[in-house]
Amino acid sequence: MTDTIRKDGRITTQLREVTIERGWSDQAEGSALISFGKTKVLCTASFTNGVPRWLAGKGKGWVTAEYSMLPRSTNSRMDRESVKGRIGGRTHEISRLIGRSLRAVIDTKALGENTIVIDCDVLQADGGTRTAAITGAYVALADAIEWAREKKFIGQKAQPLIDSVAAVSVGIIDGEPMLDLAYVEDVRAETDMNVVVTGRGLFVEVQGTAEGAPFDRRELDSLLDLAVGGAADLTALQVEALGRASA
Amino acid sequence: MTDTIRKDGRITTQLREVTIERGWSDQAEGSALISFGKTKVLCTASFTNGVPRWLAGKGKGWVTAEYSMLPRSTNSRMDRESVKGRIGGRTHEISRLIGRSLRAVIDTKALGENTIVIDCDVLQADGGTRTAAITGAYVALADAIEWAREKKFIGQKAQPLIDSVAAVSVGIIDGEPMLDLAYVEDVRAETDMNVVVTGRGLFVEVQGTAEGAPFDRRELDSLLDLAVGGAADLTALQVEALGRASA
Amino acid sequence: MTDTIRKDGRITTQLREVTIERGWSDQAEGSALISFGKTKVLCTASFTNGVPRWLAGKGKGWVTAEYSMLPRSTNSRMDRESVKGRIGGRTHEISRLIGRSLRAVIDTKALGENTIVIDCDVLQADGGTRTAAITGAYVALADAIEWAREKKFIGQKAQPLIDSVAAVSVGIIDGEPMLDLAYVEDVRAETDMNVVVTGRGLFVEVQGTAEGAPFDRRELDSLLDLAVGGAADLTALQVEALGRASA
Amino acid sequence: MTDTIRKDGRITTQLREVTIERGWSDQAEGSALISFGKTKVLCTASFTNGVPRWLAGKGKGWVTAEYSMLPRSTNSRMDRESVKGRIGGRTHEISRLIGRSLRAVIDTKALGENTIVIDCDVLQADGGTRTAAITGAYVALADAIEWAREKKFIGQKAQPLIDSVAAVSVGIIDGEPMLDLAYVEDVRAETDMNVVVTGRGLFVEVQGTAEGAPFDRRELDSLLDLAVGGAADLTALQVEALGRASA
Amino acid sequence: MTDTIRKDGRITTQLREVTIERGWSDQAEGSALISFGKTKVLCTASFTNGVPRWLAGKGKGWVTAEYSMLPRSTNSRMDRESVKGRIGGRTHEISRLIGRSLRAVIDTKALGENTIVIDCDVLQADGGTRTAAITGAYVALADAIEWAREKKFIGQKAQPLIDSVAAVSVGIIDGEPMLDLAYVEDVRAETDMNVVVTGRGLFVEVQGTAEGAPFDRRELDSLLDLAVGGAADLTALQVEALGRASA
Amino acid sequence: MTDTIRKDGRITTQLREVTIERGWSDQAEGSALISFGKTKVLCTASFTNGVPRWLAGKGKGWVTAEYSMLPRSTNSRMDRESVKGRIGGRTHEISRLIGRSLRAVIDTKALGENTIVIDCDVLQADGGTRTAAITGAYVALADAIEWAREKKFIGQKAQPLIDSVAAVSVGIIDGEPMLDLAYVEDVRAETDMNVVVTGRGLFVEVQGTAEGAPFDRRELDSLLDLAVGGAADLTALQVEALGRASA
Repeated sequence: MTDTIRKDGRITTQLREVTIERGWSDQAEGSALISFGKTKVLCTASFTNGVPRWLAGKGKGWVTAEYSMLPRSTNSRMDRESVKGRIGGRTHEISRLIGRSLRAVIDTKALGENTIVIDCDVLQADGGTRTAAITGAYVALADAIEWAREKKFIGQKAQPLIDSVAAVSVGIIDGEPMLDLAYVEDVRAETDMNVVVTGRGLFVEVQGTAEGAPFDRRELDSLLDLAVGGAADLTALQVEALGRASA
Repeated sequence: MTDTIRKDGRITTQLREVTIERGWSDQAEGSALISFGKTKVLCTASFTNGVPRWLAGKGKGWVTAEYSMLPRSTNSRMDRESVKGRIGGRTHEISRLIGRSLRAVIDTKALGENTIVIDCDVLQADGGTRTAAITGAYVALADAIEWAREKKFIGQKAQPLIDSVAAVSVGIIDGEPMLDLAYVEDVRAETDMNVVVTGRGLFVEVQGTAEGAPFDRRELDSLLDLAVGGAADLTALQVEALGRASA
Repeated sequence: MTDTIRKDGRITTQLREVTIERGWSDQAEGSALISFGKTKVLCTASFTNGVPRWLAGKGKGWVTAEYSMLPRSTNSRMDRESVKGRIGGRTHEISRLIGRSLRAVIDTKALGENTIVIDCDVLQADGGTRTAAITGAYVALADAIEWAREKKFIGQKAQPLIDSVAAVSVGIIDGEPMLDLAYVEDVRAETDMNVVVTGRGLFVEVQGTAEGAPFDRRELDSLLDLAVGGAADLTALQVEALGRASA
Repeated sequence: MTDTIRKDGRITTQLREVTIERGWSDQAEGSALISFGKTKVLCTASFTNGVPRWLAGKGKGWVTAEYSMLPRSTNSRMDRESVKGRIGGRTHEISRLIGRSLRAVIDTKALGENTIVIDCDVLQADGGTRTAAITGAYVALADAIEWAREKKFIGQKAQPLIDSVAAVSVGIIDGEPMLDLAYVEDVRAETDMNVVVTGRGLFVEVQGTAEGAPFDRRELDSLLDLAVGGAADLTALQVEALGRASA
Repeated sequence: MTDTIRKDGRITTQLREVTIERGWSDQAEGSALISFGKTKVLCTASFTNGVPRWLAGKGKGWVTAEYSMLPRSTNSRMDRESVKGRIGGRTHEISRLIGRSLRAVIDTKALGENTIVIDCDVLQADGGTRTAAITGAYVALADAIEWAREKKFIGQKAQPLIDSVAAVSVGIIDGEPMLDLAYVEDVRAETDMNVVVTGRGLFVEVQGTAEGAPFDRRELDSLLDLAVGGAADLTALQVEALGRASA
Repeated sequence: MTDTIRKDGRITTQLREVTIERGWSDQAEGSALISFGKTKVLCTASFTNGVPRWLAGKGKGWVTAEYSMLPRSTNSRMDRESVKGRIGGRTHEISRLIGRSLRAVIDTKALGENTIVIDCDVLQADGGTRTAAITGAYVALADAIEWAREKKFIGQKAQPLIDSVAAVSVGIIDGEPMLDLAYVEDVRAETDMNVVVTGRGLFVEVQGTAEGAPFDRRELDSLLDLAVGGAADLTALQVEALGRASA
């Protein structure tokens, strides 16, 4: 790590300004509007009794997620997937990643036969939408579980959440590892990695991709170090948001 | 009109609290986050040079709109249209209504061969989403046209906007005409009408539907009176928003 | 109203020649082939026991409608929606309008847990397809209800039909309000309105759209007057058709 | 062949009553409403200049066909393929059969770089819809070619039609070969065959299917004899229809 | 028939080299990788208990088939139907043909309420893919039935297979009837016929199409003779394959 | 690493038997049928001149991939994605992974404005289908490039391939890291990782997922060691296959 100053004034190990507006929605059982700099993602958690048919009768709950971008969340307008009539590969990939990341910290037995669907809709995109989505989704999920506890849909002593989870991107730009890439950095990165880490510091997902040149073991190691640090900062912000009274 | 006080404390001729957060988006050429009470719609305007193929070479521009609801904008979660692979009739209907309403105040010749796409995404729904969408869309549209003028994509003296436009719902509940129905009112209304009115007080669209019993001419007249009054209030709020410096 | 003579020889307050060929289909429980001038719509009513799942067990019936145009019903051939794999917004909009119009004159309790699906297929189009469809659909619906009464699927004294319903278009051309627009008139109209009226003269739907310039209250009033008169003529033709023995 | 009298009074070698209402449509370049008993198919021919991209520049024209059934053409209502969002195998199969049958009597060079699309929409179905469609489509096609000749889109001496074409179904019921099966016969047939024959008596398509038990060579031969005779009768009716002045 | 020698050295009445690799799959209940020259089709039979809902409770089983081509089975790459989001007419047509052909030799009562799905995936295509598919599918089907008998899903004495079935293409090239057309022959054929024949020599399907000029009765007869001979050769190869121990 | 013997007799660091049948297809420009134990994937490379529109005129080529599973490649039959009308998230994800992996070893400038589409169709699945696909795809890709060089579609000295690429799965089962998981191992793995490595030993993709419990840095390190070793073995097998004369 060095003290290189980035275009937006950050040092390499620094997150963008992160804000978590918990309880943004009046409708959802849990919600958070999260910002990583200009990236803004609205995360809602919808709690319903019952589980999909393939899981029925096993005494376990289900958590799943859907990710989507508004058509003008990006610099030039994209066609809506509803208009195209099909969901693109990237959308599918990220929805699945968010779902797996959340299930990694859920004890589905403790959740009982209930389903929580997390929707992560990107209102504005400036890099790191999937990592912001996971980080905000955890807050919405935690609130939906508290809601269900109050409504007695889950037991008063049940602990469906066995850990917290947050995610951050890291990448190598001009040979230098950097944390939480903004869009202009992301397009220049030679290697790009999204890392999902629990509150206890364990890995849930490590997804590294050589965008430019393949990377070696030393580079991989320094990216992982950077990600673990950034994820710890995000965990602290989640704890703080969940400690405040909901909006 | 009477002085009946509604559940939320309004009198029959009163709008809910309306806020217009102009310039909400850092990405779009024009944008507004509009609220009619708890109904919140993000409207963005995307300006591009050129027109669809069927309009090319006629020296005219094009304005169109797409409306959509986030899956958990409502009290219980709806499936995404992108997941269902098809757009529902209601969505189509409202997208077309918004587009027609905006085109009614556009001089497409003055716009030149440019296209403006308005996206209206409902972040939270509590009745009146289509009327809020039209009212906010006008603000986004006006800003996109100013942007294009500054960028010299349209002439400095061109006046593509020939009027402003706003919309409001009215309905008859327990025999009494009321302005700007919230969701709990909307489901109880015997007759429901959406009225789109220009800044000069002319009608662009009048869509009245008997939800319960058919209505007579006298009822129709009183609903139209109410709508014209409410639309004038919205016009004033648009003027005020466009007069402020953009966020 | 004036005595202006239109291209096809009609005065402004005059319908085109309307014919209703009741019982056209050997297959459907009720049917009518209706013509408004060259516009020809085949309306069939399909009666089945039972209701959609969301309505089951409430002791109520359901009436719904689907509208479609044959690909060469129009002057130049349109692609089939089945080939495109998606139903367009206009089709959805009109199907919904027909369904709402019919339900406005149905007592769903008296219908019992039965479903009637109305199909309106435009064989030839020359303006006013949606209004012809509603007017013909009522005849098919009435016959399907009689069929069901004879088959004892509904009680002998049940009166599911509480009124009749008809629809007509009106518009302003060169400043003059006119009834029942043919296609060449429709494309020239500044304002276009479809009005659905019951046999008793009450409004079910009022859908006015400014195609050219926005319209004022006086214009709106004269269009409504014209529509109410035309609808009364159509009601008389429906009564006559239902009084004849079925084909 | 025997003199067995069928349920509807026909002998085994007899067609149902066939009527051809030529020029039914005011919109299409050629059209015919054809009935084989209660089976009614509306056939329209749409002529356009130019050919699909894959055929451009070869000096040849193109003829293609689309077949569809109205939802209530049958005894119980079928879902629309536009609503299902996909075209079924049977529809595809029949559309392709009609197209191939017509192209067999077309000299595409003489047609020039023009396209004729034939739409065959079944208004009422009682067996034999595909054979009625082919037989009626030929009449619509012939008229569209005459129209194009008059409009000088094809040369005055060009002869794009090199023969006529008609089609008929045959089948074996209770061991006996029968011509032109009505629906109640079709469902009982052990073997079902559709045969497309030119005016000169040559085969274009022979599609025989064992619905019940496989069939032997002798049965196949007697079915072909029957079909050739029926097709000759249909050819005579086509000649007669084209000889009359168009409706 | 003559002794004309074809491009690939065959005489007119000769099949290409046919190989049947029985039991190719470790996963399916029955399978065969069949080659007709360079045409290679992988046929698998999937046996499951139960039948589709519309057949339930009738004491009968169901056999159906799906055909598909790998995108680069052909000389130039085709788009995948999964990518296009719709299945083409040809694919539907062939899937239905295979299903009907197999059901013609099945006693569905003896099969009991069980379903067998046959998948025929063309790994490499050089003409005759549908006939190879039917011929190979029979082998897979026979093995799946044996598997089910061993697993006691069907009775030890039940005989669901009442005959065998094979298929072959025939065509007329330069006026001469030929058996089992390779791709280069198929594109040159004036008439093309696919014939499905049982082991006992009865016809299940006869599908003849005039690709170039219509054909007469004498040509039809000689094609049928040729097909019956070729099918007998294929039957012998099926018998031999099923007599060997499975791979 | 330990000497634990697995169910199928392998030690933890051992690949399954890998075979590469190069040039399997007579149609494709490059092809390989690769087996990792019972997993069999047919990889074809289709070379065409020109590039997608978005890349045109930049002097660069394009390599992309599509992955799919035959419906009965697995233990129980899956519905075809073409029948479902949509491609699932997993399929999209793997297609994208294969494409990125191959592009990491391609110099698109040296390829010129040409496109290579790789199709990876899983004929039989027993775990590791995506890693087998990548490993086989490289062989097909290398042969397609040689073919293009011979046909002079790319320069004689152009070196579009800058490295080779192979992929392998690793996972932790009962706390022990293991190489190249078969299906029965994969479902039991606590952590599952797919690693794509170049012939020079650099990383292209690292995709680790906690299926059961999150994993720590030490576990991650041991999985990476194992993967690098397995990839080197696969590289040697690729070299050997490409050294042999093509089938």
